[in-house]
Amino acid sequence: MLTLQEAQALIEKRLQNLNLPGEPKELYEPVKYILSIGGKRVRPALVLLACDLFGGSTASAVFPALAIEIFHNFTLLHDDIMDKSELRRGKPTVHHKWDENIALLSGDVMSMLASRLINESPGAVLRNVNDVFTKTAVEVCEGQQFDMNFESRVMVEEEEYLRMIELKTAVLIAASLKIGAMLGGAAEKDAEDLYRFGKNMGIAFQLQDDLLDTYGKQEEFGKKTGMDIIDNKKTILMIAALREGNKEQKKTLMHWLTIKDFDAQKKVCAVIEIFDALDIKSIVNKMIHLYYDEAIENLRNLNRPDEDKTELFSFAEYLLTRKK
Amino acid sequence: MLTLQEAQALIEKRLQNLNLPGEPKELYEPVKYILSIGGKRVRPALVLLACDLFGGSTASAVFPALAIEIFHNFTLLHDDIMDKSELRRGKPTVHHKWDENIALLSGDVMSMLASRLINESPGAVLRNVNDVFTKTAVEVCEGQQFDMNFESRVMVEEEEYLRMIELKTAVLIAASLKIGAMLGGAAEKDAEDLYRFGKNMGIAFQLQDDLLDTYGKQEEFGKKTGMDIIDNKKTILMIAALREGNKEQKKTLMHWLTIKDFDAQKKVCAVIEIFDALDIKSIVNKMIHLYYDEAIENLRNLNRPDEDKTELFSFAEYLLTRKK
Repeated sequence: MLTLQEAQALIEKRLQNLNLPGEPKELYEPVKYILSIGGKRVRPALVLLACDLFGGSTASAVFPALAIEIFHNFTLLHDDIMDKSELRRGKPTVHHKWDENIALLSGDVMSMLASRLINESPGAVLRNVNDVFTKTAVEVCEGQQFDMNFESRVMVEEEEYLRMIELKTAVLIAASLKIGAMLGGAAEKDAEDLYRFGKNMGIAFQLQDDLLDTYGKQEEFGKKTGMDIIDNKKTILMIAALREGNKEQKKTLMHWLTIKDFDAQKKVCAVIEIFDALDIKSIVNKMIHLYYDEAIENLRNLNRPDEDKTELFSFAEYLLTRKK
Repeated sequence: MLTLQEAQALIEKRLQNLNLPGEPKELYEPVKYILSIGGKRVRPALVLLACDLFGGSTASAVFPALAIEIFHNFTLLHDDIMDKSELRRGKPTVHHKWDENIALLSGDVMSMLASRLINESPGAVLRNVNDVFTKTAVEVCEGQQFDMNFESRVMVEEEEYLRMIELKTAVLIAASLKIGAMLGGAAEKDAEDLYRFGKNMGIAFQLQDDLLDTYGKQEEFGKKTGMDIIDNKKTILMIAALREGNKEQKKTLMHWLTIKDFDAQKKVCAVIEIFDALDIKSIVNKMIHLYYDEAIENLRNLNRPDEDKTELFSFAEYLLTRKK
């Protein structure tokens, strides 16, 4: 069986050897750039692992896997424009290094290059693979829009938040596994089980991300912690605290969520003090474990020999215990 | 045989009855808006006409036809952001009516909706239709990038300009015809002949557009004329004038192309005076006729009964004689 690490390495190599046109260079240089500055290549690796799990050939899954990684990077590129982010993976974002028009258009061409690579799927599954891919792509746009909407709202319900991260993050991880399974010749039901595993893992992954942003160790996390608090993000931590807190605590949280001028360090400390008093870390950890357990259950139910699932079990374990 | 007008009406009706999701409304309202403010629906109508020409059923071509119109409107939406245009078809542009983030993301979702509709093509031609569609989509992005590059350059060669309008405008008209032909079951050679017809017509169309922007009658053209001159666009008129002009005329043109503060009316008159002196209108008209004649030749060569080609001949005639 293929290992996650082997799959990641294979994708990395193929990405760096993509045969992109040279001209116009303003269009393709940013594409090469964003694909060269790293990323864990988890989604395309999952395509390959899922295909392998059902005995499909890796060769038949490589192009759709690359499609998903390029699509993912296209969404990051456009999200960075919308969020006015200056850094991505510790490097200047495309719109910051070039300009917004170049970032917009090179993102557009990436989404089209992704569609071209999906079209390399074998004939028997082409329509279904394309259907899952484009449905998911639409959902990712919906998730990003909900995320932007939440920025200008003070209150976001837990249910709405979970739906948003499902769309923005989880469905692409789920679709990667489902597409891999389809390419490997899996039965509809098995591909669906793998989709559910991916969706539950994806939600657990994002909740974990929320936790790390506040409680991660900066030297392990690799980014500045506390940024979600500073940016007034309605993460699962903030949502839980606004629900669990007493009148006084809610008032304090609302104060920090609405004040325009503040000392960042002071704000982060004050908000964390309330999170700690309410034991939000445990509440969120419990949620993560619920999704994780559900995911493990989906994987156990999958109609494949247990020993073939080893890589996916360790992938789940890795996501749960990661520090960054 | 289906007429152009019938095809346009059918597309218009289907576009207005598209079953788009309601939520998030910030994502889908702009999509409905841009599809509701008009447009001649020429490209999707050409898909239907080409399919009909080879005896294909209109029903099998409607979804891919809608895909092409939605893709076209997606490119307009994103181009308007890049060009900072405030008006499209006499109505506020999406980024002007909402904001740039909403325009960016609703454009993205349109490109994905287009891919979903392409995926409704019949199985026998799905891969080939998707291949032509995505190849063309990439080329349109390349054309837009070349167009943006030319804005910051003073000199643009005729050959470069023709290649740019081929990519930005002509290939999508050509692809519409080719995809229609493929859906109708045309042989590869016939689909190619129709592609060439579309490409030559598309180039003639854009050159005609350049001419109308300067020499059109404002009340017929429907937009303010002279805008290309004011915006320093390197249209075929300007390129020809910079080539044909004597030292003095070139110097005057360069003066107007580089001066920052100017009286718009004065600039338009001065540039047109040189265009007139060099008879640029005739030069460009000759070029248009060369592409038009070539297109007619492509259509004549097409292996179908002449009487079945009537609508495409009148379409070509219409493009050549249009006043707007």
